[in-house]
Amino acid sequence: MSGNSIGTLFRVTTWGESHGEAIGVVVGGCPPRIPLTEADIQQDLDRRRPQAIPSATARREADRVEILSGLFEGKTTGTPISLIIRNRDVNSDDYEDLRSVYRPGHGDFTYQRKYGIRDHRGGGRASGRETAGRVAAGAIAKKILAREKIRIVAYTKELGGIVARRVSPAEMAGNSMCCPDSEAAGRMERKIARARKSGDSLGGVVEIVVSGCPAGLGAPVFDKIDADLAKALMSIGTVKGVEVGAGFAAARMTGSVCNDALGPEGFRTNHAGGILAGITSGSDIVLRVACKPIPSIARPQQTVDDKGNPVTLSIRGRHDVSVIPRIIPVCEAMVGVVLADHLLRQRAIGA
Amino acid sequence: MSGNSIGTLFRVTTWGESHGEAIGVVVGGCPPRIPLTEADIQQDLDRRRPQAIPSATARREADRVEILSGLFEGKTTGTPISLIIRNRDVNSDDYEDLRSVYRPGHGDFTYQRKYGIRDHRGGGRASGRETAGRVAAGAIAKKILAREKIRIVAYTKELGGIVARRVSPAEMAGNSMCCPDSEAAGRMERKIARARKSGDSLGGVVEIVVSGCPAGLGAPVFDKIDADLAKALMSIGTVKGVEVGAGFAAARMTGSVCNDALGPEGFRTNHAGGILAGITSGSDIVLRVACKPIPSIARPQQTVDDKGNPVTLSIRGRHDVSVIPRIIPVCEAMVGVVLADHLLRQRAIGA
Amino acid sequence: MSGNSIGTLFRVTTWGESHGEAIGVVVGGCPPRIPLTEADIQQDLDRRRPQAIPSATARREADRVEILSGLFEGKTTGTPISLIIRNRDVNSDDYEDLRSVYRPGHGDFTYQRKYGIRDHRGGGRASGRETAGRVAAGAIAKKILAREKIRIVAYTKELGGIVARRVSPAEMAGNSMCCPDSEAAGRMERKIARARKSGDSLGGVVEIVVSGCPAGLGAPVFDKIDADLAKALMSIGTVKGVEVGAGFAAARMTGSVCNDALGPEGFRTNHAGGILAGITSGSDIVLRVACKPIPSIARPQQTVDDKGNPVTLSIRGRHDVSVIPRIIPVCEAMVGVVLADHLLRQRAIGA
Amino acid sequence: MSGNSIGTLFRVTTWGESHGEAIGVVVGGCPPRIPLTEADIQQDLDRRRPQAIPSATARREADRVEILSGLFEGKTTGTPISLIIRNRDVNSDDYEDLRSVYRPGHGDFTYQRKYGIRDHRGGGRASGRETAGRVAAGAIAKKILAREKIRIVAYTKELGGIVARRVSPAEMAGNSMCCPDSEAAGRMERKIARARKSGDSLGGVVEIVVSGCPAGLGAPVFDKIDADLAKALMSIGTVKGVEVGAGFAAARMTGSVCNDALGPEGFRTNHAGGILAGITSGSDIVLRVACKPIPSIARPQQTVDDKGNPVTLSIRGRHDVSVIPRIIPVCEAMVGVVLADHLLRQRAIGA
Repeated sequence: MSGNSIGTLFRVTTWGESHGEAIGVVVGGCPPRIPLTEADIQQDLDRRRPQAIPSATARREADRVEILSGLFEGKTTGTPISLIIRNRDVNSDDYEDLRSVYRPGHGDFTYQRKYGIRDHRGGGRASGRETAGRVAAGAIAKKILAREKIRIVAYTKELGGIVARRVSPAEMAGNSMCCPDSEAAGRMERKIARARKSGDSLGGVVEIVVSGCPAGLGAPVFDKIDADLAKALMSIGTVKGVEVGAGFAAARMTGSVCNDALGPEGFRTNHAGGILAGITSGSDIVLRVACKPIPSIARPQQTVDDKGNPVTLSIRGRHDVSVIPRIIPVCEAMVGVVLADHLLRQRAIGA
Repeated sequence: MSGNSIGTLFRVTTWGESHGEAIGVVVGGCPPRIPLTEADIQQDLDRRRPQAIPSATARREADRVEILSGLFEGKTTGTPISLIIRNRDVNSDDYEDLRSVYRPGHGDFTYQRKYGIRDHRGGGRASGRETAGRVAAGAIAKKILAREKIRIVAYTKELGGIVARRVSPAEMAGNSMCCPDSEAAGRMERKIARARKSGDSLGGVVEIVVSGCPAGLGAPVFDKIDADLAKALMSIGTVKGVEVGAGFAAARMTGSVCNDALGPEGFRTNHAGGILAGITSGSDIVLRVACKPIPSIARPQQTVDDKGNPVTLSIRGRHDVSVIPRIIPVCEAMVGVVLADHLLRQRAIGA
Repeated sequence: MSGNSIGTLFRVTTWGESHGEAIGVVVGGCPPRIPLTEADIQQDLDRRRPQAIPSATARREADRVEILSGLFEGKTTGTPISLIIRNRDVNSDDYEDLRSVYRPGHGDFTYQRKYGIRDHRGGGRASGRETAGRVAAGAIAKKILAREKIRIVAYTKELGGIVARRVSPAEMAGNSMCCPDSEAAGRMERKIARARKSGDSLGGVVEIVVSGCPAGLGAPVFDKIDADLAKALMSIGTVKGVEVGAGFAAARMTGSVCNDALGPEGFRTNHAGGILAGITSGSDIVLRVACKPIPSIARPQQTVDDKGNPVTLSIRGRHDVSVIPRIIPVCEAMVGVVLADHLLRQRAIGA
Repeated sequence: MSGNSIGTLFRVTTWGESHGEAIGVVVGGCPPRIPLTEADIQQDLDRRRPQAIPSATARREADRVEILSGLFEGKTTGTPISLIIRNRDVNSDDYEDLRSVYRPGHGDFTYQRKYGIRDHRGGGRASGRETAGRVAAGAIAKKILAREKIRIVAYTKELGGIVARRVSPAEMAGNSMCCPDSEAAGRMERKIARARKSGDSLGGVVEIVVSGCPAGLGAPVFDKIDADLAKALMSIGTVKGVEVGAGFAAARMTGSVCNDALGPEGFRTNHAGGILAGITSGSDIVLRVACKPIPSIARPQQTVDDKGNPVTLSIRGRHDVSVIPRIIPVCEAMVGVVLADHLLRQRAIGA
């Protein structure tokens, strides 16, 4: 309950700071006898890495995961799986001038106020780097879900105000934006290029779709599946909004439109996003998250130091322009972790 | 972890079905020596009751709360506070024809699939009536928060597509919509009247603002204050989306606009909605939730029974047209419960 | 986590004070579709009542349980089961002279130091009366366990230094001591009569045996089944020690004696008490708890009031001489609650 | 809730197997700004190592702890502290002949039945080696407690039936048994030598005393401090019994003897072991645990393999004769973890 864990039966605990020795994650409650390799996990971690996406990101990371426990002869044993990723090439000197300055849009100010101390180097614990542990845990969750034919796909729905107008899985693979509308993807790439040039950053919307999920997952009334998904997704630093199915648009619908009619063949529409009264219905789960623009920008910003003196800050170094598309596997991971947990919880009920 | 509790130190457990003997809530972890009366709680429960708002609702409930434990001579003792509200005038016969029919937009189908059994009367556990327990718990949370001068106000931001253009506390009290823009409130009232006439229902958006909250609340990385607030709010049956500060609009901003500059006097804007890196900043916390239209409508709807046979269903009886404004004290309560919990958690850190 | 709940999936929350309006319990996570009646629960509650055992107790209670939620047409629905027992004939005036005095051996002093306030009437929350809620929850747990043929029996192993030399189930029913050795039972009854006459009280040892429990329950490394059982049993106010299998005697054995040899037919001895490395082995689970003598005695005792002034206290009224045998169904209940929880947890693993 | 964590606010999660890559622990919820070094932790780990105690143990381990996160410039930051200890010189071949044999007294059989798979090498997750992580976490807990002048000391109360008759701190340091009665210690050492020669092992009793603990810690009714201590101690693999204060002896006392009288100067005796109604009283907390003899013995034992075939097993290699005294810092650690957690919980109440 120290805030570093999520899940009841499938339980994920991350640790580590951006510029510490390492980051890692402990995954407890994984069922036994599931084949698992470091490659299974590395694959998702690599999707979080910037290299393949030259336009959106600039930093280079070589996140090599190591499994330290919980496996025996290639299979899970039911004991906790400890994963570690060493931090490399962490030059703390780069951050020396940020030691006493609160970067706008970052957690510098609030960490200092909460703890009275903070690791200022690269955001410390609040760094996006922490999400590597989530992605690693999510890869394990996906192995559990895959056995039940549950599949999670996330993609760029919107970036810098440009909206993907269609969802073509084929097109998704063909662009650096992880966008299922290649025409929109092209415009997104150009918008990112312009933002970089102007020293600014962009936000966007990620859509996550879960197919093959059985009806019955979710624990009313507080651990509703949408409540737990909302928490998991909102716990990603960049996320400022979460919606399910029709989401905010539902607020503008009438009941006769919003209600999903049922026929002998199943639900005829999916405004509910696959969730009714906090329990999965068997329809696709559809979620969207709003990602704010990356707060680290080259443009000068007004802020203060820890003595309250005004400071004009221009953040140096090469930063991403947008968390999209790197945030996409993180969103998938968080959804996977929640679903794996509720899948196990539902088994316990034995209904 | 059965799903019926929320909170770590300030812990709320609700129980009860719409047409059972009673509903109730157990509040554990309330600090000792806080003056508390049934009237403190009844006051918020009454805001949840329909009577004062003839246009939006039709049912009449007399929710009289009884405190059964946790008090001694008018003060909390630190032991669990048990609150009960008896269900009255519950005519189960009204629901006999819904015994085997799945109402669109309700949890009938998913409860049946999850548990293999369900109390069909009035929605059973999934009924909005369960939220009375939340409001009661929220009233206790607010007593804790009031000692720290933390104040929660929620109001109708949008209803049926009509948006409140300003937030005038004075105007809020003067209309049945709990809307801080009386001109918009008038249009909302007329829209509700039209929807009722046509046998349909409406959704809307509630905005919640917390003032006086100190910096430092929230437990990274999973129990971020916005993550816990999102879960708490999304766990309200009607809610399909939650956003913080600029929310989904942040996805369309650039970093140079979205970042809240800091000056010696504090934050100059509040796009972050009072939360940075999952920790409160001292600025007002601003949240919005999207409420779907009430699924019980008089208009005929297509559905199936539990054998899969098609059924055309017209829901009888007088139902609310919109959960707004009755949902407003529920939103306040959920925010209160989360903040009280994190206030206690932060005390434990002693930073 | 306010301390009033136990269990992860099968989760029990008690509330209420000895002389408040009522006491009760909320049982979350009970699987659906289990037949349950108030009579099922009342039966165990009656075993906790003093009436049938004139020699050991004097007070009379009429604990009538009422089920307020979680049932539909006689079966559990998977939603929380709320049980309430009204407090009757609670004459608070009897306790007025104890308002500011700390009774030796009771929680008066420590509750005051913890909370800065306490309900002095009858022990308040620390009263043995709270265990009625545990017994009620245990009755539900036993219904779950009974479906798997798991059976829990507890009995008086020792009272006032008199030890039962054999375990004859037939003899257990034939005496007021719930002792499986009728000769010892006779001596126990006489010892209780003498202690009552001298204004004193007695302690004893309860042994709990679980038969039919499958191998595999328990979650290493902290939620070992013996760890969770020890916590559950030690949480009973009167218990000062818990041991498993050979228990403290194991400390005096050599490994060659203590180790239970395995043959094709199973374990040949059961010094382990049915638990190895925190996981059930399929052998009978054997536990013993040490119960201290009831602290409320007629004899004069030295204590202080809340100002620190010395007081000589003689506790009036008719109190039990020993918690045995009334504590026996409480021990069974706590064991039942832990096993039901771990049974559900093991199902989730699906191993 | 996967069983690998303990504590609510101060939360300890261990991971790792005896012969895997490493073992480790994540400590969440440690308050910020506490000075901490690897040496602080190493000191307690070294007490768990066998080297200084030639008579009781034979194996050699070089447990070198590494802090991977949660520190900044030598102080805790409030973020999770990840500690890792690499496993060295783990020759898995030594265990090849135990791959399919269930060692009596070990968790081999039960792990197999629970998970359907197990790491047979050195006990895998059930190895005593896992306790190194506990000791490391306990060292951090002790730092928190030391700031409040709370001090935990454990020692050998009994070994192989030989009982320490007095508690002289000076004598404790002067013998290899960590026994506060040097005369008894001498006999214990000789008894261990004889047991080793005969290929057998010995059990014993550890007593733990906490001084300086303030009144008020513990959360009724289930998270009583003695309940949580009992769980924490019983979760140590070797422990088969836990008692508080007079413990099982209390079962043979009368109330007039067992009750601790109160005078203006405080409690006059301490049969309660510093805990009343589950809350600390300010007196010393006194606990004892029964440790079974080490199950790995050279003498031939009857068991079966995983096909149910009878096997006569003589365990090779040099094993400890008794877990005492190596278990002593583990007991201290578990007590420290529980007290640190409840200290933080009590702060949250703010009573």
